[in-house]
Amino acid sequence: MKINDNFLKIQSSYLFSNIAKKVNAYTAANPDKPIIRLGIGDVTRPLAPACIDAMHKAVDEMADEKTFMGYPPEYGHKWILEAIAENDYRQRGVEIDESEIFLSDGAKSDCGNIGDILSVDNKVAVCDPVYPVYVDTNVMAGRSGDFVNGGWSNIYYMPCTAENNFLPCLPTEKVDIIYLCFPNNPTGMAITKTELKKWVDYANENGSLILFDSAYEAFITEDDVPHSIFEIEGAKTCAIEFRSFSKTAGFTGVRCGYTVVPHDLKCDGVELNSLWARRQATKFNGVSYITQRAAAACYSEEGKKQIREIIAYYQNNAKVIYNGLKECGFTVYGAKNSPYVWLKTPDNMGSWEFFDTLLNEIQVVGTPGEGFGPSGEGYFRLTAFGSYENTVKAVERIKNYFVK
Amino acid sequence: MKINDNFLKIQSSYLFSNIAKKVNAYTAANPDKPIIRLGIGDVTRPLAPACIDAMHKAVDEMADEKTFMGYPPEYGHKWILEAIAENDYRQRGVEIDESEIFLSDGAKSDCGNIGDILSVDNKVAVCDPVYPVYVDTNVMAGRSGDFVNGGWSNIYYMPCTAENNFLPCLPTEKVDIIYLCFPNNPTGMAITKTELKKWVDYANENGSLILFDSAYEAFITEDDVPHSIFEIEGAKTCAIEFRSFSKTAGFTGVRCGYTVVPHDLKCDGVELNSLWARRQATKFNGVSYITQRAAAACYSEEGKKQIREIIAYYQNNAKVIYNGLKECGFTVYGAKNSPYVWLKTPDNMGSWEFFDTLLNEIQVVGTPGEGFGPSGEGYFRLTAFGSYENTVKAVERIKNYFVK
Repeated sequence: MKINDNFLKIQSSYLFSNIAKKVNAYTAANPDKPIIRLGIGDVTRPLAPACIDAMHKAVDEMADEKTFMGYPPEYGHKWILEAIAENDYRQRGVEIDESEIFLSDGAKSDCGNIGDILSVDNKVAVCDPVYPVYVDTNVMAGRSGDFVNGGWSNIYYMPCTAENNFLPCLPTEKVDIIYLCFPNNPTGMAITKTELKKWVDYANENGSLILFDSAYEAFITEDDVPHSIFEIEGAKTCAIEFRSFSKTAGFTGVRCGYTVVPHDLKCDGVELNSLWARRQATKFNGVSYITQRAAAACYSEEGKKQIREIIAYYQNNAKVIYNGLKECGFTVYGAKNSPYVWLKTPDNMGSWEFFDTLLNEIQVVGTPGEGFGPSGEGYFRLTAFGSYENTVKAVERIKNYFVK
Repeated sequence: MKINDNFLKIQSSYLFSNIAKKVNAYTAANPDKPIIRLGIGDVTRPLAPACIDAMHKAVDEMADEKTFMGYPPEYGHKWILEAIAENDYRQRGVEIDESEIFLSDGAKSDCGNIGDILSVDNKVAVCDPVYPVYVDTNVMAGRSGDFVNGGWSNIYYMPCTAENNFLPCLPTEKVDIIYLCFPNNPTGMAITKTELKKWVDYANENGSLILFDSAYEAFITEDDVPHSIFEIEGAKTCAIEFRSFSKTAGFTGVRCGYTVVPHDLKCDGVELNSLWARRQATKFNGVSYITQRAAAACYSEEGKKQIREIIAYYQNNAKVIYNGLKECGFTVYGAKNSPYVWLKTPDNMGSWEFFDTLLNEIQVVGTPGEGFGPSGEGYFRLTAFGSYENTVKAVERIKNYFVK
C-alpha cells in the first residue's frame, strides 16, 4: 500500500490541539490556579429549552417500535429542510429549494469534505489569517504545493490586516476556489453587501467558486451585512454556503450543520449539486434523528426566542471584552457582528508570547493570531462564548496586569 | 474552477436510492397494497431501554450550564473508548489501546473517508458481490480506472459465488488495498479464523492493507468465526477495522461507529494511526455527546443483556426466512452468522426481474444481487431486520406464490 504523502507535509498537530496541550501542562503544574478559557470558539450556555424538549420527545420515539426511526434520509428530513429554507432564506428574501440544502454533522465536516467534488488541479485562495481547516484540508488533498517561507507555494494568500480593515483585496492573479468566511473567524470583522457583491462579480467573471462560511451569521447586528451570500445577486452561479447550528444554537456538542449548493451552480454544464448529493449519499449516512429534531426546534417560535436570548448573552460578553480592552488602551477589532474580539498585541509582542503571558501570568486562554496564518502574527483572538462572570473576571485580570 | 471528473464516471444514483424510487412508484400507484420491506439493512426494533435512559440523562445534562457539553473530543470521550477497548477487544483476548480507536458518526463515513489517507496510486481489491460504498468511493477518488465490460478496469474483483462457498480466493496479482467484510454483506456468509489468517499472511507478505468491515459481528453464532480481524495473529501490522453500532444496537438512526487503526500498522515507517488522527481532527468534529452516552450504555450490564435480546429477535427472523425459503425449494445461504439471507433466484431469473416480481406480485421488497456486483447476478438478498410478524408474512407470501 501507499499512503497519501500530502499528509506528511502538514504539521503533525492541529492549532487547537497545541493550545490544549499547553493549557493541560499548565493546569497539571498549577492545579490551584483556575483558568478562564476564551480561546477555542466553544459555547458554554445550555441548549435552548425548546431543543431539550424536542430531543426528549425524539428519544421517546426511538423507544417505541411504532415511532422508531432507522436510517435518516441522507440529506435530512423534509421538515428540517423546509424549516431551513423558510427561516434562513425565504424570510430574508432568498429562494432556496429544499433539494439545494444538505444537512450534515457540522460545517467543519462539510468544509473539509467539499474538496472531494473538486479537482486537485484548482488554485485555492484563502484569507490570511484564516480558519486552519480550509488550508489543511487542501494540503491533504494535494492542492497546496510545498511549504516555503511560511506559506504554501500553490495557495494564494489574501492578507487581512488593520491596513485593509481586515477585508481581503480581489486576487491579482486568476484563482479557482475562494474561501470566504464572514462574519470572519478569527478577526470578527464583517463584510457589507456592497463589498461581497464585488467577490460574486469576480467569481462569475472568472469562473471561480466561492466557498462561503457563514457559521457566525447569528451574531450580525448591522443591516447592510448579509447573513447569506445568496442575498447577493449572482451568488447562485458561483457559491456554496456552509452553515452551522454550533454558534447559532449552541450545538457544538450536538453536531449539526448544513451546506447549500444551488442548482444554478455549474461547471461545464454539470451541477455541483448533483456531485455533492452523490458524495453525501455515498460517504455519509445522514444526521441523528434526535439531532434533527433539536435543529428543527430552533425554528419554532419559542426556540427562536430562546436562541435570540442566548445570542444576546454572548453579544454582551463580546461588548464587555471589546470595551474592557479598549479601556486598557489596546487596539481592538471585531465584536460588533461577531462573537470574536481580535486585538493587536501590546508592545509588539509576538502572538504566542502574548498567549504564554496570559496563560502563565493571569490564567486566561486565548488564541494566538499567528496560529491562523502569518498575517495573524501580532494579533490575538478572544471569544465571547464564556460565562458572563468569567468574561468579566478575565477582563479584570487583563486590566490589572496590563494597566500599570 | 474544475470539478473532480471521477464523479462523472459513476452512475448517477446509488443502489438503494434506485430501489427506493421503484418502491415509491409502486406505492403511489397501489396505495392499498401494503409493502413488506426486507431490502435495505435497516433495523426496526426500538432502542434498548439502557440507551434510551442514557440519552434522556445526557439531554438533561445539556440543559444545565453545570453539566453542558460543548465540542466533543475529536476521537471520542475517554469512557466510551475504554468501554470499546474492554468489551469489544480485551474480553476477546485482543489488546487495543484507546488511542487506536476513533469514534465516528458511522462505519459508512469511515469506510468512505479512509481513502483520504491513502494514495490514489493503489490497486484496490474487492469481493464481488460487494457493499457498493467500497467501490464507489474509490471511483470518486480516482483509483478505479474506467468502467468497461461491467467492471472497473483498475479494480481487482474477487468473485464470491456458490462455487467457492462465497469465500474470495487470494489475489493472483499484487494488490495494495483489500476490502473484506465478514460476516459478509450481502451474502451473509462468515469466514473462519483459519481462512482469515491466510488473508493476514498474504497482506503482511505483500505489504497490502486490509480494510476489514465487521459491522455484522454481533450476529456471529459460531466459535471459529472471528468477531474482529485483530483476533488473528499478525493483523495489527496490516489491517484497519470498521465497527458500527447500527446493526449491533439498532443505531441506524442514531449514527455511531468506530474505526481501529493499530499503531503497529505502518507504511515506510509512518503510522497510519497518525494520518487518520490528523484526518479526523481536521475534517470531523466528534460525535454528539448524547449519542456517545447511548453508545456507552450498550456496554453496561443491562444494556448488553437488552441488546442480546434484540439480536436474538433478528436472528430468529433470519432463521424463519432461511427455513421458509428452503421449504420453497430455494437454494439459500447466510443467516447463520448474519442478519442476511442470500438466495439463488429460482428458474434462473435475473435478480432485478426477481425484484420486480416480488414487488409487483407479492409486495415484498428485497435487494437484487446484481446491485452488489456482476457476480451477484442471479442472487437476491433478504434481511432479518423486519418485525417478526412481517417476516413471517413475507415468507408466507413467497411460499404461496412460488410453491405451486
